[in-house]
Amino acid sequence: MAKILVIGIGAGDPGQLTLQAVAAIGATDVFFVLDKGEIKQELAGVRQEILDRHARDRAYRVVTGQDPDRDRAADGYVEAVEDWRRRRADVCAALITDNLGEGQTGAFLVWGDPALYDSTLAILDDLTARGLSFDVEVVPGISCVAALTARHGIALNQVGAPVQITTGRRLAEQWPSGTDDVVVMLDARNAFTDYADQDDVEIYYGAYLGMPDEILIAGPLPEVADRIVAERAEAKERKGWIMDTYLLRRTRTSHGGG
Amino acid sequence: MAKILVIGIGAGDPGQLTLQAVAAIGATDVFFVLDKGEIKQELAGVRQEILDRHARDRAYRVVTGQDPDRDRAADGYVEAVEDWRRRRADVCAALITDNLGEGQTGAFLVWGDPALYDSTLAILDDLTARGLSFDVEVVPGISCVAALTARHGIALNQVGAPVQITTGRRLAEQWPSGTDDVVVMLDARNAFTDYADQDDVEIYYGAYLGMPDEILIAGPLPEVADRIVAERAEAKERKGWIMDTYLLRRTRTSHGGG
Ligand SMILES: C[S@@+](CC[C@H](N)C(=O)[O-])C[C@H]1O[C@@H](n2cnc3c(N)ncnc32)[C@H](O)[C@@H]1O
Ligand SMILES: C[S@@+](CC[C@H](N)C(=O)[O-])C[C@H]1O[C@@H](n2cnc3c(N)ncnc32)[C@H](O)[C@@H]1O
Repeated sequence: MAKILVIGIGAGDPGQLTLQAVAAIGATDVFFVLDKGEIKQELAGVRQEILDRHARDRAYRVVTGQDPDRDRAADGYVEAVEDWRRRRADVCAALITDNLGEGQTGAFLVWGDPALYDSTLAILDDLTARGLSFDVEVVPGISCVAALTARHGIALNQVGAPVQITTGRRLAEQWPSGTDDVVVMLDARNAFTDYADQDDVEIYYGAYLGMPDEILIAGPLPEVADRIVAERAEAKERKGWIMDTYLLRRTRTSHGGG
Repeated sequence: MAKILVIGIGAGDPGQLTLQAVAAIGATDVFFVLDKGEIKQELAGVRQEILDRHARDRAYRVVTGQDPDRDRAADGYVEAVEDWRRRRADVCAALITDNLGEGQTGAFLVWGDPALYDSTLAILDDLTARGLSFDVEVVPGISCVAALTARHGIALNQVGAPVQITTGRRLAEQWPSGTDDVVVMLDARNAFTDYADQDDVEIYYGAYLGMPDEILIAGPLPEVADRIVAERAEAKERKGWIMDTYLLRRTRTSHGGG
């Protein structure tokens, strides 16, 4: 049976690679890559650096498929993502059947932790549902959430309290009820600005975490929101892309029991 | 200025150590350890294995303080934890002032990721508030949440949906509103059994993740709840301690927009 490794590589700094991930990379025959176009050259660069450093003891191949575009204009977000996943699954099915021999080990290098807002595992589920057969093994990675809190030197949760991880899209609808601590990913709309009049809210913001252009901003949200909006726009303009995440922490109120 | 590293070492498997963590361990002069008594010998064993393997290129010292007991009978949970932290801070203050020389590097090795339900960072904040002065640097680690999802080969979130990380104490009060996916840590009371009549809920359970005695159980909650309760009790009885976590996933309903 062929084996497919889904390897978390951390959220930007190649030093976030685990020893397990290094070993898994060293045991891989074929790396599958979905090419996301030019904008993310820099991310592809981090992956290449990792391969150059850790896959060199063994003959390996890198095979690349064209990542299909996502229809961002589509009505339903979930439907758009599912359609996109289906088309990615088509590309991956071809990559795997054309390139992975019996008994060989293939791998996907996944940004951050493979469990967090990433479609690789769902695609592999799709492929087994279509009748492809392989074993899957997941190597956990440092997520951008762990990277964010580490760089700010803060805990994710308040004592005994819950934390919600959500998207910019959701935060723009409402503050998640019952929780004072909210981590936001995939925010293309500055959803934090909706709460910029609440002076019991602090923000811990990070862009390009672990990378040379890293931006860290923290403080009471009403005081730093404008600066984040400006630095974010400036960075995106300058580099052509941005990847950022933040924790919103409500400090004075207290929800729930305990 | 002295430096204190707070190094996440992963949640059980020494292979979860990152390259950054290995480098940080190699750069440490003094490791601070709080002795939690005999029950957690095995966890101390994992730490020792890590030191033996990665700290050997350099002279280093390990200094140990007695971890104060937590008053589990106290009324307020938050107050009890805060009082405990204060007493731990006293112990740590002594450890640091007695052992960390000017310009030296000290380190705490923290289980999992230092941001998640761990008091080391809060204690160091306390110590700087008391006037001790040192730089703090955090090295993120693989949390038990990342370990859990990796071992089950699942995503943490459903497409575009939020995830809540919470405690057994909170889950026993209520299912967090607005989210279908809940990760539960620190559950000493089998809080999941409160939902064992809901057949749209799946559980992904893991105990001793990454360790030799690892237990993985997954399935519809009504079908596997009893087995989890039984295996958990048996394992705790046999080993004297248990460390476990789980994801509850509601599959049929849908909350919120988008
Ligand atoms: C598709 S998700 C993948 C997340 C990834 N699996 C992880 O565990 O970090 C991409 C989102 O993660 C966040 N992100 C990933 N890497 C980041 C970094 N280095 N700095 C800031 N945010 C990052 C951003 O919110 C981005 O929109
Ligand atoms: C005080 S918290 C520390 C969590 C740690 N900082 C992390 O990131 O995983 C301890 C709780 O973490 C969970 N936990 C930690 N390691 C675990 C493991 N190897 N297997 C299962 N659960 C674990 C359990 O819920 C336990 O009660």
